[in-house]
Amino acid sequence: MSADPLRAGERRSNTPQTNGDRLWNDIVGTARFGGAENGGVTRLTLSDEDRQVRDWYVSECRGLGCTIEIDGIGNIFATYPGEDMSLPAIAVGSHLDTQPKGGRFDGILGVLAGVEVLRTLKESGTRLRHPLTVVNWTNEEGSRFSPAMMGSGVFAGALSLDRAHALADREGTTVGAALDAIGYRGEADGGPAAFAAYVELHIEQGPLLEASATEIGVVTGVQGVRWFDVEISGTEAHAGSTPMAQRDDALVAAAEIVLAVRDIARQNPPGVGTVGFAEVGPNSRNVVPGSVGMQIDMRHPSEAGLDQMQAALEETVRTVGAGADLRHVWSKAPVVFDPPIVEAVRDSTEALGFSATDIVSGAGHDAAHIATVTPTAMIFVPSKDGLSHNEAEYTSPEECARGAQVLLQTILELDRR
Amino acid sequence: MSADPLRAGERRSNTPQTNGDRLWNDIVGTARFGGAENGGVTRLTLSDEDRQVRDWYVSECRGLGCTIEIDGIGNIFATYPGEDMSLPAIAVGSHLDTQPKGGRFDGILGVLAGVEVLRTLKESGTRLRHPLTVVNWTNEEGSRFSPAMMGSGVFAGALSLDRAHALADREGTTVGAALDAIGYRGEADGGPAAFAAYVELHIEQGPLLEASATEIGVVTGVQGVRWFDVEISGTEAHAGSTPMAQRDDALVAAAEIVLAVRDIARQNPPGVGTVGFAEVGPNSRNVVPGSVGMQIDMRHPSEAGLDQMQAALEETVRTVGAGADLRHVWSKAPVVFDPPIVEAVRDSTEALGFSATDIVSGAGHDAAHIATVTPTAMIFVPSKDGLSHNEAEYTSPEECARGAQVLLQTILELDRR
Repeated sequence: MSADPLRAGERRSNTPQTNGDRLWNDIVGTARFGGAENGGVTRLTLSDEDRQVRDWYVSECRGLGCTIEIDGIGNIFATYPGEDMSLPAIAVGSHLDTQPKGGRFDGILGVLAGVEVLRTLKESGTRLRHPLTVVNWTNEEGSRFSPAMMGSGVFAGALSLDRAHALADREGTTVGAALDAIGYRGEADGGPAAFAAYVELHIEQGPLLEASATEIGVVTGVQGVRWFDVEISGTEAHAGSTPMAQRDDALVAAAEIVLAVRDIARQNPPGVGTVGFAEVGPNSRNVVPGSVGMQIDMRHPSEAGLDQMQAALEETVRTVGAGADLRHVWSKAPVVFDPPIVEAVRDSTEALGFSATDIVSGAGHDAAHIATVTPTAMIFVPSKDGLSHNEAEYTSPEECARGAQVLLQTILELDRR
Repeated sequence: MSADPLRAGERRSNTPQTNGDRLWNDIVGTARFGGAENGGVTRLTLSDEDRQVRDWYVSECRGLGCTIEIDGIGNIFATYPGEDMSLPAIAVGSHLDTQPKGGRFDGILGVLAGVEVLRTLKESGTRLRHPLTVVNWTNEEGSRFSPAMMGSGVFAGALSLDRAHALADREGTTVGAALDAIGYRGEADGGPAAFAAYVELHIEQGPLLEASATEIGVVTGVQGVRWFDVEISGTEAHAGSTPMAQRDDALVAAAEIVLAVRDIARQNPPGVGTVGFAEVGPNSRNVVPGSVGMQIDMRHPSEAGLDQMQAALEETVRTVGAGADLRHVWSKAPVVFDPPIVEAVRDSTEALGFSATDIVSGAGHDAAHIATVTPTAMIFVPSKDGLSHNEAEYTSPEECARGAQVLLQTILELDRR
């Protein structure tokens, strides 16, 4: 079976055709760098496995006629020349690092699809007006060095290069030392010139596209996030001799908060709310719990939605039985992608005859940083069972190929502007 | 201030009068064996501190004219002669071991009040028809060697002496070796002859008497206990990209069970239900929990009540969203004390003019084992703030003295039968 994403009779454009089989071969082929037998990949940022995939990527892009620039945080910019080199480049890309026991698609698809676009342009003799830059951002995952989205954060000015270099992993190795160790501390300080646009193809990492049997997600933005810690103080007591009416049970109060977080999210669609962490004290079967510490994650595409969710959470915590102390520990504002770039993605998907839906990303992406300095949008393809950060992560060859084709179509659309 | 428990004009009996000050001096005095500066006591069973308090106790009882018997598990029986030595002894007592960072009253009061009764009988020249045995049961607490209530369990035949001897603490020391080390492995194999009755004075370890300003609890039995483990299996998922409608959140299911356990107990008074232990997996703020393990403790004075609570719990677990597996891991049948002995406690309390209420013990006691082989009852006195197994455990001198006086009055009442 060929991975040709375009069903017979459905071609509505004369766009050059990306090669889905070739893209799939790259996905399977590069998975050997840090690959596990079950198809998973462990390729922590700036590890030797990361060096191997970077070397492959640089060599591949050079072979296609790209110039390579590497900046101080190790972001790799492979630029294919345009007819008018005075124009800013159109950029696409994502990241080649993975979580420990991660999959073959998260991030990787966006970079490899960029490479496939380069091949298709070269093969078909298609010349763009703009230069086209394919980017591999350093340390999107954040599992070795925190924070996540580090390379795009430095590029966008959210994090200084000096601070980033000084951050260390659990063994005490700094980002700077790790860059030197694999030979990817570059010269292009502060990144290259501004881009005309940035488009990132990524797997959804959620179940919506699969559940609605939709081929392409037109990503309109990234949810905002607010993190809260709550400390519940009840009264530790004997589980046998303390009557129900005289209890001040911290876990009962915690349970009320867990259900309230769910209800608050349901009442503020499309918001989501999660209590992912809970720790009970003293955590002994026959002692009424005296304390519970919980960590709460709330997300919504709008600040107003986040405000409403936070207010409802604060009200809940005020009214639960036991004493509870709520602290807002971190937040990330919602990102709204650039409407003309989003429109270009939507139009391109339509031109190709793929089913599409607008979608707000629940997960963070490099594109969220880049959106602060460049007109940006994203393209999602389905994730089987919504799984990600998992060795069982899967997107079919046909789904990957459709994503690559939409990426190319969008580039051509943007290039005409 | 004297700790005379009987208010002026309220004496309605000609019972000899126990000496509340003397009892309090013993409580404070013996707290030096394993005592902490803040009034707490750490006197783990068969430790050197336990040996010290045992030596003191044996010496004190010998001085009052008692014969001392020690059985194979180290239970100490101090017997004061009666007029008719062919009659079985009336027994009273409790335990002198404590929890780590325990208090001065839990168990200790029952033994020391027995000693104070002996003193009062001797001092007043009162002769009982029956012999009177004051017992110190080995290892009631179970915090060094499991199970708890070991000495009374061996006495009652619930645990064989050989098995008990072979049980080891965390350092690998066996009960047998620990008995030898402190010189309390006795000869009285299988315990002494059957008792006519057993009465145990104990602090309530709960808040009921204090809350209702009641002086004496007439204990009619010990709640039954059933322990359950529940393993909830949801689906681990991304907290950002998984919509609320597509979640299978193990912690949300767990919260529903926590609240159901509370509701089930409320609907089955005077039952109690507690989720004291919960462990969340993977327990990370931004991951929808995939698993929760919980431990549940349910208690009720009747088997029928326990059956109803268990059925309701099973129904709850069947109907929660995520998959949940409930296992019944341990149970202890309710104990109903001997009605004539309970009646003797109630009558004695009334004769002394103390306020009283019937109460079912929420905690386990040596009396629960002894009740299987001897007509048994218990007397409770208030615990400040319901606290126990805690260095802040407190019962006032007056409250202790009232308990001792009810104990003596009950012995006299039983002796007349």
